[in-house]
Amino acid sequence: MARIVQKFGGTSVGSVERIKAVAQKVKATVDDGHEVAVVVSAMSGATNQLVTWAKECGAFHDAREYDTVVATGEQVTIGLLAIALQDIGVDARSWLGWQIPVHTDDAHGAARIESIDTTKITNRMAKGQVAVVAGFQGIGPDHRITTLGRGGSDTSAVALAAALNADRCDIFTDVDGVYTCDPRVVPKAQKLNHITFEEMLEMASGGAKVLQTRSVAMAMRHKVKLQVLSSFEDLPGTMVVEEEPDMEKNSVSGIAFSLDEAKVTLVAIEDSPGIAATVFGALADAHINVDMIVQTAASEPGKTDITFSVPETDLERTRKVLDDVRKIITCADMITSSDICKISVVGVAMRSQPGVAKTMFETLADKGINIEVISTSEIKISVLIASDYKELAVRSLHSAFGLDAN
Amino acid sequence: MARIVQKFGGTSVGSVERIKAVAQKVKATVDDGHEVAVVVSAMSGATNQLVTWAKECGAFHDAREYDTVVATGEQVTIGLLAIALQDIGVDARSWLGWQIPVHTDDAHGAARIESIDTTKITNRMAKGQVAVVAGFQGIGPDHRITTLGRGGSDTSAVALAAALNADRCDIFTDVDGVYTCDPRVVPKAQKLNHITFEEMLEMASGGAKVLQTRSVAMAMRHKVKLQVLSSFEDLPGTMVVEEEPDMEKNSVSGIAFSLDEAKVTLVAIEDSPGIAATVFGALADAHINVDMIVQTAASEPGKTDITFSVPETDLERTRKVLDDVRKIITCADMITSSDICKISVVGVAMRSQPGVAKTMFETLADKGINIEVISTSEIKISVLIASDYKELAVRSLHSAFGLDAN
Repeated sequence: MARIVQKFGGTSVGSVERIKAVAQKVKATVDDGHEVAVVVSAMSGATNQLVTWAKECGAFHDAREYDTVVATGEQVTIGLLAIALQDIGVDARSWLGWQIPVHTDDAHGAARIESIDTTKITNRMAKGQVAVVAGFQGIGPDHRITTLGRGGSDTSAVALAAALNADRCDIFTDVDGVYTCDPRVVPKAQKLNHITFEEMLEMASGGAKVLQTRSVAMAMRHKVKLQVLSSFEDLPGTMVVEEEPDMEKNSVSGIAFSLDEAKVTLVAIEDSPGIAATVFGALADAHINVDMIVQTAASEPGKTDITFSVPETDLERTRKVLDDVRKIITCADMITSSDICKISVVGVAMRSQPGVAKTMFETLADKGINIEVISTSEIKISVLIASDYKELAVRSLHSAFGLDAN
Repeated sequence: MARIVQKFGGTSVGSVERIKAVAQKVKATVDDGHEVAVVVSAMSGATNQLVTWAKECGAFHDAREYDTVVATGEQVTIGLLAIALQDIGVDARSWLGWQIPVHTDDAHGAARIESIDTTKITNRMAKGQVAVVAGFQGIGPDHRITTLGRGGSDTSAVALAAALNADRCDIFTDVDGVYTCDPRVVPKAQKLNHITFEEMLEMASGGAKVLQTRSVAMAMRHKVKLQVLSSFEDLPGTMVVEEEPDMEKNSVSGIAFSLDEAKVTLVAIEDSPGIAATVFGALADAHINVDMIVQTAASEPGKTDITFSVPETDLERTRKVLDDVRKIITCADMITSSDICKISVVGVAMRSQPGVAKTMFETLADKGINIEVISTSEIKISVLIASDYKELAVRSLHSAFGLDAN
């Protein structure tokens, strides 16, 4: 007997038929003798509708009221799933964030889970009752409903698995696992049986949508065994695990890409100590997350060019912050572009195989693709290129690193 | 300065535009210097959708899970209305049943309010904050969400008004007040400026849909001044008040009708002591609400016919209960019919004006309408007639009692 947390996303519970199918999956796990807690998202489309209404009701919208509105999506799903489970003879009850309770901080709309009191649900799970838990929500110190921000149900599931000391956390989704690359872009992409937490984290921050970065980081911190698998098929998925010796043969485990970045170049900025601190300090104060930075000598002596990337959604705000910065430091020009793509190759084996960067740069050069910015970590190399070359770059790299399916 | 509870039903909050219009109405009351609590229903259609899903998910549906699902309708509305109010500069916050809290018994799906702790909301209302309260819901002794049953938001509003010791409870709806009869059936019906609690209660139980019987009974018990008025126009409505001397000139204040009844006749049942107790005891045990009863001599000696009415929705169950009763007592036949209409003339002045019954029966006889069952209370006379005659009967009575508008 194991204790298992299962999480089903919006597509998996998108209709009454789908909810009944989820109930059957849960029943199968219960019938195998396991203790089960199920975390669910809102029915697909529901959250968008609620968000639209909230925005239409007021340009300024109080995040506490927003949370009250959008948290209803998950509340509907847990009630319906509990009913569907009972209907096929499975003892089940629904749990809202405030009922468990799931305590969060007061950052309404993007709250962080602080603690989960599992006393009540473990008592009932021990008696064979399935706990059907609303993802994405908790209760704040102000005794009001909080939400964790988009994709928060993955985080809810992992946090619950950690709090329950669960043997496994299964994330059911509309894909059947983690792939070497997005199969819609790289048809030869292969499903991975295993991936390490660190790789998954780099893949997620690199743009792979299969898991939320935040939930992977939490799983890594609490050593929660994660599995990503399909809610539509009955197949094993991808296990996200701690690193084991010789777990991976390839130097590169996967390739991620993202079009959600924008590039900013400060041209011929004065090259004196403290300039970088001024620029990036101002951006940090504005809570703008700078990802990749490169500094190159400018044509003019005593000047330098600084290029970096920011989330595309923050580009407008970045421009405003830098307009202010340019009032106090000399800078010839500011050039921005959204037509860029970040490509990341990821693999823990990279640590011991120094040829990865060389292969990456040569492959792109062979195809005539210009690299605009490079950044590296121990297990990842990311480059910014013009977005037009996305498919060509990703497919070429996928082949070059031996990831193509036969 | 007064303390006012305002209640807006589903049609009044059926869209973002309507919610914004409600916000303007609330603002006007706040601007007049009043303390305001607003009770709202789910957006029209929302509850039906949720109920449908719950039914589709399981034939057996746990009322606790059903409540968890359907209570979300009001949760959405309170958040949206609070946002809309803040957007026009009105300080407001939403309150769920469990946050206030509104304590109910554990009859999930049809719970009764036991107490409302108004400490938190009165503190904030005193500081000028509008309390936006979810109607229809509370929290049970099991710490789970309960709902009050259909139309429960009226009851929530009245209960809140009583608990807050409010000066008035305004029920905003899609009609502009209580009429002498439904204007869709009687075009000459007139809006009443005043109606007594007792009359309103008889009108509501007689079929007038404008207020829930339960909420009127509660208002009467707690002496909550009720006003029924339009959420679409800016006009005074109908005040539901305690009786005052010579408040009404007419012997009859209004006429209600209902097609939601069914008639049952037990033909040639043995006429011995205890028979009525057996029949109606069995129905009471099955929680079937018998309304009108008449007993007549049957053609056979020592036998009697008993005719009575039950809610049409309970007819099937009534038949089953009586099938069992007929196994132990002699009864030649059981005849049931749904094609009947109950018509009630209501008026507190009836007490001192004995001619009402005579006028009623003569008017119907003149039109050739057969009365099948009669029942009376101090301030009401009800008859059952064939439903085909509904319009003719109602309009003739409306004229006969001098209720027609000029």
